[in-house]
Amino acid sequence: MIEKVVVIGGGAAGPKTAAKLRRERHDIQIDLYTQEDIISYSACGLPYFIEDIIQKPETLIIRTPEDFQKQNINIHTKQKCLKVNPEEQTVLIEDIETKNIYEVHYNILVIATGANPVIPEISGVHLKNIYTLRTVSDGIKIKQKMQNSKRAVLIGGGYISIEVMEALVKNGIQVTLIEKNKQILKMFDEDFAQKITDYIIGRNPGQVNILTNENVTYFEGNNKGEVTKVITANGKIIDTDFVVIGAGVRPNTDFLEGSGLKFSVKNSLRVDNTMRTSNHNIYAVGDCTDNYNLVTNRRTWIPMGSTANKEGRCAAINIAGDNCLFEGILNSTITKYFDYTISIIGISYKEAISLGFQPEYAIVTKQDKAGYMPDNEPMTLKLIADKNTRTILGLQGIGEGDVNQRINTVIPAILGKIKLESFMNIDLPYSPPYSPAIDPVLNAAQIIYQKINV
Amino acid sequence: MIEKVVVIGGGAAGPKTAAKLRRERHDIQIDLYTQEDIISYSACGLPYFIEDIIQKPETLIIRTPEDFQKQNINIHTKQKCLKVNPEEQTVLIEDIETKNIYEVHYNILVIATGANPVIPEISGVHLKNIYTLRTVSDGIKIKQKMQNSKRAVLIGGGYISIEVMEALVKNGIQVTLIEKNKQILKMFDEDFAQKITDYIIGRNPGQVNILTNENVTYFEGNNKGEVTKVITANGKIIDTDFVVIGAGVRPNTDFLEGSGLKFSVKNSLRVDNTMRTSNHNIYAVGDCTDNYNLVTNRRTWIPMGSTANKEGRCAAINIAGDNCLFEGILNSTITKYFDYTISIIGISYKEAISLGFQPEYAIVTKQDKAGYMPDNEPMTLKLIADKNTRTILGLQGIGEGDVNQRINTVIPAILGKIKLESFMNIDLPYSPPYSPAIDPVLNAAQIIYQKINV
Repeated sequence: MIEKVVVIGGGAAGPKTAAKLRRERHDIQIDLYTQEDIISYSACGLPYFIEDIIQKPETLIIRTPEDFQKQNINIHTKQKCLKVNPEEQTVLIEDIETKNIYEVHYNILVIATGANPVIPEISGVHLKNIYTLRTVSDGIKIKQKMQNSKRAVLIGGGYISIEVMEALVKNGIQVTLIEKNKQILKMFDEDFAQKITDYIIGRNPGQVNILTNENVTYFEGNNKGEVTKVITANGKIIDTDFVVIGAGVRPNTDFLEGSGLKFSVKNSLRVDNTMRTSNHNIYAVGDCTDNYNLVTNRRTWIPMGSTANKEGRCAAINIAGDNCLFEGILNSTITKYFDYTISIIGISYKEAISLGFQPEYAIVTKQDKAGYMPDNEPMTLKLIADKNTRTILGLQGIGEGDVNQRINTVIPAILGKIKLESFMNIDLPYSPPYSPAIDPVLNAAQIIYQKINV
Repeated sequence: MIEKVVVIGGGAAGPKTAAKLRRERHDIQIDLYTQEDIISYSACGLPYFIEDIIQKPETLIIRTPEDFQKQNINIHTKQKCLKVNPEEQTVLIEDIETKNIYEVHYNILVIATGANPVIPEISGVHLKNIYTLRTVSDGIKIKQKMQNSKRAVLIGGGYISIEVMEALVKNGIQVTLIEKNKQILKMFDEDFAQKITDYIIGRNPGQVNILTNENVTYFEGNNKGEVTKVITANGKIIDTDFVVIGAGVRPNTDFLEGSGLKFSVKNSLRVDNTMRTSNHNIYAVGDCTDNYNLVTNRRTWIPMGSTANKEGRCAAINIAGDNCLFEGILNSTITKYFDYTISIIGISYKEAISLGFQPEYAIVTKQDKAGYMPDNEPMTLKLIADKNTRTILGLQGIGEGDVNQRINTVIPAILGKIKLESFMNIDLPYSPPYSPAIDPVLNAAQIIYQKINV
């Protein structure tokens, strides 16, 4: 008999679990503890708040603590979980303001502590005006600083840096992005990463610089302790008003050391497809858990807001006594730089090679609508399929055209293991304002099929 | 040994077959005969030519006869096929201008004669300024007439009428649409047809009228033989400057009577999944052929430009000696009225009932992007699944939001027979400018799954 469920973490997955569980069951006590002062917000929207497409940070909040109280869910903000004791079924909590430490008992525990930004060990990294972007409070700080700045440096070439770059460029900031690898967006094949780089640099001539194969040696500050220069291994000295570090995140699971819970990729928590950890009474959801990759059939760790929401919903259903399986993910990601969509699903060609697949690919550059429609836009797709099984392994899509539609078309085809010869003739709806008569993604499938069958 | 391939028909499917066959094989003589004076054009673009989004009719032409001659494909315009003699492997052709009749021999014949508009047997239907829209010449006539008109009547509430209505409304014409059934767009469920009707009427107040359950009794003309009034069975008298009849189309196969070829639904030609007719030496492609519906597993007849192109490509590959199977269609269609997308794939709830499925459905109205993004737009989805197999049967989508993306997501899920419980957690890429964290189409799947599992 479950009487009390304790949720730790207040980002996306924890509140989702609590809210869904309450809809399923009215007889369970639900307590949610979070170290932040707000809960249930969309971290993915933060770049658009900085950009000022969204004016108020509150707009990003999905449900307030008061909304939860109305649902009879007890929200405890500024309360940090220090330790979990699975044998006793207790968690140790610290009140961040009073420093008071207390124990809370649970029947079922849901760990949803998310992920924290990686802070690279670089001299000067703790100077003022060096930020990461993970919480609403981070976003507020960056937005305020941006408003009286002219130059910024972004460390790391992942999605968040691209999104922050758009925000800064739109607000007139001169931006330099520094990436230690030979390409930005490492999940993409190098050819596509290069095309994206070229687009970004060409989009606002002179305002953006992207340095690859480049490491920061140290950050230099002024006498107020504020960062003023970024010095690189290749001897570049970049004047700047502030820095945003987008060097990735890592699961927030350090406090679970010694708990006996099983860990997985990059210290994420190992969960099964019901979102249960290695302990029968403990579930975990969101960015702190590992994932099962349905293309590679391997455990992986891809922290995504959409996955967090689905996992929270699934865990709640299972805790409530019904049945929900979260089968896995396809590494699906999308972002944009101005009107240019950047998306990848499944695996890249290089990853397919490294995993021992026998991949073949096709690159197609086409207009997204009928060629004679005046508002059509170009896009480039790289479709990857396995020669042996003739199933699709992944798709990379970039361009001002409607890439998203094509990405979404391929996802169920990967999941359903639809063969190329079926997929290339699939009945996508056609009308000139929506696509060419034969959709570019089907052209790509046709080309791979012909390559394979030569 | 194939020496000579004859193609009859010059719309989309015939030229596609000829062009693809030439790319596959350089040693075959290819002759294409068409009764029209132009070939290889996008009939689906004609409403946008009338609307004047596209200014010149030539823009709709994909390849000219000269383009084909360069590829060593012989194009014979204004040449009508009167008869096919499968035993002798000959076709009888009439030169429309000289009336000269002659016989042409083939090794392989490709029939791509398309479909013709249905002209309802209504008194006065042959008056001047009563048009159908099928060919470029039809489009030119309607566009010219529109430019000095104030009022128009559209007969029939299918996609073409909706598209022509947009064209006319944007050009300031007062439009009345008359539909004999109780709803427009008969493939939709009644609730969605009503929502679409409400949107169209509300979009341009006072400029558009839609009459359902209404039949035209006769067309009245003036002393120049031009239509001036439409009189309905319910006694309405509608003044008009011109009329466009969109009462559907029928396969252009009458000339094949007595040929021994097997016919199918609505007098379309029966083809197998290689696009071959019942005669070993005769293929058929495009709007004159039947289709296999992969949801209902029945033969059907849905003439679509996208299908025509795919079938033409497939037939060419098979004629060339390679292998291409065209497995079937999913009844996928899409159009728009101004910024409002109208789309259906698979089957409706009412059709599912009538075919003996045990359907369940969910209707979801949501914003297409994250709720806090200022440019999000609403859409309404109706997802239909079968209770027994828990697979998706169809999706109807309407609204100013990005319906197309959701429609395209469901199509491979239908084809791959992905179960609801897998589909509802599928890893669609998420970013606030593209979708909510859990996509509305997945919400719909979740709702059906819960309904089924109660």
